[in-house]
Amino acid sequence: LAAGVRARLDTNSLNPDRYFDPDPAIRRVARALYEETRELPIVSPHGHVDPRILSVNAPFPEPASLIVQPDHYILRLLYANGVPLEALLEGDPRGIWLLFAKNYHLFSGTPSGGWLEYELFEVLGVRDSVSGETATRIYDEIVEKLKSPEFRPRALFERFNIEVLATTDAATDSLAHHEAIRKSGWKGRVIPTFRPDALFKISSPEFDALGARDYTSFLRAIADRRAYFKHLGATATDHGVLEPYTSLLPEEEAERLFQRARRGEATPEDERRFTAHLLMEMARLSLADGLVMQIHAGALRDHNHAVFERFGPHMGGDIPVATEFTRNLLPLLNAYGNDSRFTLVLFTLDESTYSRELAPLAGHYPAVRLGPPWWFHDSMEGMRRFRERTTETASIYKTAGFNDDTRAFCSIPARHDLARRMDANYLGGLVARHVINESDARRMARALAYELVKKTYRL
Amino acid sequence: LAAGVRARLDTNSLNPDRYFDPDPAIRRVARALYEETRELPIVSPHGHVDPRILSVNAPFPEPASLIVQPDHYILRLLYANGVPLEALLEGDPRGIWLLFAKNYHLFSGTPSGGWLEYELFEVLGVRDSVSGETATRIYDEIVEKLKSPEFRPRALFERFNIEVLATTDAATDSLAHHEAIRKSGWKGRVIPTFRPDALFKISSPEFDALGARDYTSFLRAIADRRAYFKHLGATATDHGVLEPYTSLLPEEEAERLFQRARRGEATPEDERRFTAHLLMEMARLSLADGLVMQIHAGALRDHNHAVFERFGPHMGGDIPVATEFTRNLLPLLNAYGNDSRFTLVLFTLDESTYSRELAPLAGHYPAVRLGPPWWFHDSMEGMRRFRERTTETASIYKTAGFNDDTRAFCSIPARHDLARRMDANYLGGLVARHVINESDARRMARALAYELVKKTYRL
Amino acid sequence: LAAGVRARLDTNSLNPDRYFDPDPAIRRVARALYEETRELPIVSPHGHVDPRILSVNAPFPEPASLIVQPDHYILRLLYANGVPLEALLEGDPRGIWLLFAKNYHLFSGTPSGGWLEYELFEVLGVRDSVSGETATRIYDEIVEKLKSPEFRPRALFERFNIEVLATTDAATDSLAHHEAIRKSGWKGRVIPTFRPDALFKISSPEFDALGARDYTSFLRAIADRRAYFKHLGATATDHGVLEPYTSLLPEEEAERLFQRARRGEATPEDERRFTAHLLMEMARLSLADGLVMQIHAGALRDHNHAVFERFGPHMGGDIPVATEFTRNLLPLLNAYGNDSRFTLVLFTLDESTYSRELAPLAGHYPAVRLGPPWWFHDSMEGMRRFRERTTETASIYKTAGFNDDTRAFCSIPARHDLARRMDANYLGGLVARHVINESDARRMARALAYELVKKTYRL
Repeated sequence: LAAGVRARLDTNSLNPDRYFDPDPAIRRVARALYEETRELPIVSPHGHVDPRILSVNAPFPEPASLIVQPDHYILRLLYANGVPLEALLEGDPRGIWLLFAKNYHLFSGTPSGGWLEYELFEVLGVRDSVSGETATRIYDEIVEKLKSPEFRPRALFERFNIEVLATTDAATDSLAHHEAIRKSGWKGRVIPTFRPDALFKISSPEFDALGARDYTSFLRAIADRRAYFKHLGATATDHGVLEPYTSLLPEEEAERLFQRARRGEATPEDERRFTAHLLMEMARLSLADGLVMQIHAGALRDHNHAVFERFGPHMGGDIPVATEFTRNLLPLLNAYGNDSRFTLVLFTLDESTYSRELAPLAGHYPAVRLGPPWWFHDSMEGMRRFRERTTETASIYKTAGFNDDTRAFCSIPARHDLARRMDANYLGGLVARHVINESDARRMARALAYELVKKTYRL
Repeated sequence: LAAGVRARLDTNSLNPDRYFDPDPAIRRVARALYEETRELPIVSPHGHVDPRILSVNAPFPEPASLIVQPDHYILRLLYANGVPLEALLEGDPRGIWLLFAKNYHLFSGTPSGGWLEYELFEVLGVRDSVSGETATRIYDEIVEKLKSPEFRPRALFERFNIEVLATTDAATDSLAHHEAIRKSGWKGRVIPTFRPDALFKISSPEFDALGARDYTSFLRAIADRRAYFKHLGATATDHGVLEPYTSLLPEEEAERLFQRARRGEATPEDERRFTAHLLMEMARLSLADGLVMQIHAGALRDHNHAVFERFGPHMGGDIPVATEFTRNLLPLLNAYGNDSRFTLVLFTLDESTYSRELAPLAGHYPAVRLGPPWWFHDSMEGMRRFRERTTETASIYKTAGFNDDTRAFCSIPARHDLARRMDANYLGGLVARHVINESDARRMARALAYELVKKTYRL
Repeated sequence: LAAGVRARLDTNSLNPDRYFDPDPAIRRVARALYEETRELPIVSPHGHVDPRILSVNAPFPEPASLIVQPDHYILRLLYANGVPLEALLEGDPRGIWLLFAKNYHLFSGTPSGGWLEYELFEVLGVRDSVSGETATRIYDEIVEKLKSPEFRPRALFERFNIEVLATTDAATDSLAHHEAIRKSGWKGRVIPTFRPDALFKISSPEFDALGARDYTSFLRAIADRRAYFKHLGATATDHGVLEPYTSLLPEEEAERLFQRARRGEATPEDERRFTAHLLMEMARLSLADGLVMQIHAGALRDHNHAVFERFGPHMGGDIPVATEFTRNLLPLLNAYGNDSRFTLVLFTLDESTYSRELAPLAGHYPAVRLGPPWWFHDSMEGMRRFRERTTETASIYKTAGFNDDTRAFCSIPARHDLARRMDANYLGGLVARHVINESDARRMARALAYELVKKTYRL
């Protein structure tokens, strides 16, 4: 055996039992349940892949821009360990790849480590282990592969067995790439998601009034944009907020805040109240147009000002804060939560809310579904904690299946694979403890891998 | 074998090893420890069974009103999945049972699922698996059984091997059913618990001044009611509060708030301060009359106003909030916490407080005991988390044994069984890791199942 | 076999596999990894051993003052279970030891229980199990042993294989014992740590202005004291704060607060702001003089006023509070967190911050390292939770190795042994789940036991 192959075998990187508990009683069932779901199509209802990739369908040029640069999980951990961001974002691709390879051990035991192994071994067919020594050889090997047609984005999309891929798009996006994909005749289903964050940020230079002169026209413009997104296949909206505060304002007050926003005079407290009000309005519009409403709450964006100013957003400098759902969502849920025609999917970065607030809310209000473990918690232990802390109160049936939430296209199958494994393992643990039987477990595994996401997102 | 029996065997619903970790080293010890405690009498120091059931001792009419309707865990999850509460509370019993049976899969992996299996199989002797197909047959079977004398409430009480059952009663309750039980000559020990929540709610229409005209008489009336409860066997009080805030007011200020309450002018902030003050007074009275003081903190009651207005409380619409104990209890613990004659049992719905606040408080103040995992956390994983997060700091000896806390009479033995299994499993894990030896573990298992609850509640 | 030996064997107290998961796949690897680290020297960069012990090197007189009295973990749990502190702190040593022995079962399942077994069996060679019956015999046996030269502090230090021991010292400490140790010619490396808490407490009688008349001289005096500590080997400072709030004040405002402090007029809110400012200044000085900065946040000290007034601090009456890092550290990390030459080690008592705030901060800012699980969480389950909740986001490489943080000299090797076992077990679990391979695991185990602490603390 060549040294590289030996190293790879050593790493067990793609051991068929990876992530499963070693207990034989659990592992036996986990394997069987995973077999039940592993060939199911991928439904990806929330993520950040650039639709341009699939519209243009150009070959990926080389591994640094394919694997390292679009992945803030990777950038973040390298930066935290002393690698300058300049070197990762502005160097020549081959140098970037070498730097990444030399620091590859930093990913041991992190989800990025597992995703990378999957991407390299399974997606790109690399058999060497990544290290400073093998970096150049692997780089060249990948460059070579990327030239062939089966590594084009659409070919990979098909090989990944993606049934639907939702992107995340600004309210003002032209959706030209989505339109181009539709018109191209390619059968891949790529749909937009309406993410109007800039419309909420009335105290920020990012604020976009959609050209409206008054609040009523502003709301109408929002409804129009929603309709356009829906026309291009969108089934959901998404709202990134610091806190999930909701509260309806009197119409005059909403108008007053909107006018302050237009004059550039709105304060952060104005923005907080306007956001709370607009979330109520978004729920109302969702009930009207049927778009599923997602709230991603609790990230303090751009905590590191120097990194933000130099390199922009999504460089790993967003840090979570404690998040309150019970009181904050009371107005919205009292207004719309009892209506089964409305669906609200909640995401948190504060795991203490899983059992305390989120599972009780989803375990009571017909409209509420729990989004899967998000971002820092989209990992082996994070998924375990999510299931252990939400299932007993909310049941698996009030969870929304899996979201890969990724910017890194090649990590999509890696992430779904981990999720299916962890759900199989969780259910295997319940079977081994005689809490459920194997036939329940099979039914639940399929629901978690495929059915719940389709039902939740109306796909 | 009949299809029903086969299905039941398939489900392993009453597998003798249910809930135990599958690891053979843990399971062996867990089994032995569970055997040590499984025949011990049930001591139920906190729950919500209606004493009328045991006073009147009438046959239970049919399964919907016995199993479905009094159980807000069941109502909640059905409602959350789109079943209208009207259909569950107001339909004809047979239809309700069918609706429940058709949705039975929703309880897979939840504690209700396990309790239901126990109630049906062990208490009611049902051998069929519940489903839409078997619903009617099971309904009829249960109706038939409930007619026979051994399914009368007192007969079940004896079969469940209940040594003491404490109910929860309003301060103004006549306790007529408790008196009737005493006078009936029946040997079952059913005792009241003094729960004066309505006396604290001075900003609410529920407020009850016990007919007092001033604060001093009010306090005297409270002491009188406590004495009456004690006379009928009570050994404890219980206080449901949003936050466990404690703070002694000057006498004049307490009087002032009391007068505002009588005039219907008290504000929520008045109520917050009056509650904080009354908790101090309750501790003082407990030191005097020996009643154990319980605080259940952290539920935001009736979050869903529409459900509350239509169906009243306890329909699953109470949602927990983050709860602070360290600062809130400082005044009370400084005043009474060092006195071993006083016992304060603390319950939380905020699991983040287990290791951060509650275990350190119980691991220091002689008066503090930790109540078992409550409500949403009275489950396999909830119990595991409770032991893992409190034992190392507080030891098992500062915990209060188990409370079933149930309104559903037939779920009592199911809930105690789960608790004994989970404690056996926890201790089995410590033995398998060589943290304690088997003889320690046996001693600890008996303490957790029987001795600590009797000691804590002075039973 | 003598009864005592039999009892000891029964207890499995020093079973070679203690603390390891019983699963054979995990245990096999955990054993191998533990073997890899168990002989490595102890590096103890943060603790509370009195340097006088090693400077004077007098024999320890007897077991009560060696084992019971300096250990607030032990005092706390005995007190919580009704043993008066008077009896533990003021009685005759033999009586204290008897009281401790009679209550020895209270420590079952707590980390103190495990540390005590190690100290007695491994350090002191006691083969009896501790109980009321064996108490006197064990007491006499230990007294006898302590007379021999190999039980003198320095001999134990060497036997424990301690490479460096850092103490914690007030800013105004003369460091006479540290100087004496250096001059004694003994080769043991004992170094001070600069802990200037009293300089921050401007609203308290403890406040020490270092004799300065203005803020500028005060800062200069602090820098001088830091230099003196560094001269005697210190490589770190440490700051105990209720909240990790940081915020730079204008120079004039710092001066104004300093003058209010000198006049005894500073309020708690002044102290909060002055502390926030001084933390910024400490970071700036750390960047200048290279001392690693530690923050221990979140203990509400002396919660139990009666115990504090009667017995002073460190008697078990400190209780944690919820702690916020993301917003509180924003100013400090924006000013210094991107500089790799600066090291900030963060400790928390609020485990909900591990995955929510601390791992994301350490997983992004080059300067941040996570301190090991602290105090109440320095335990089998506490260590498990720490690794499970921080590794996936921050990697093990942004954690600081182990701190024993102890006042009880003989517990040092016991605590490091537990930490090495738990890290071996955690990594063994990753290997058994095929997340990492055994060679990664060996490298990581050595890093956790030895390399990371030396690197973090510049030892």
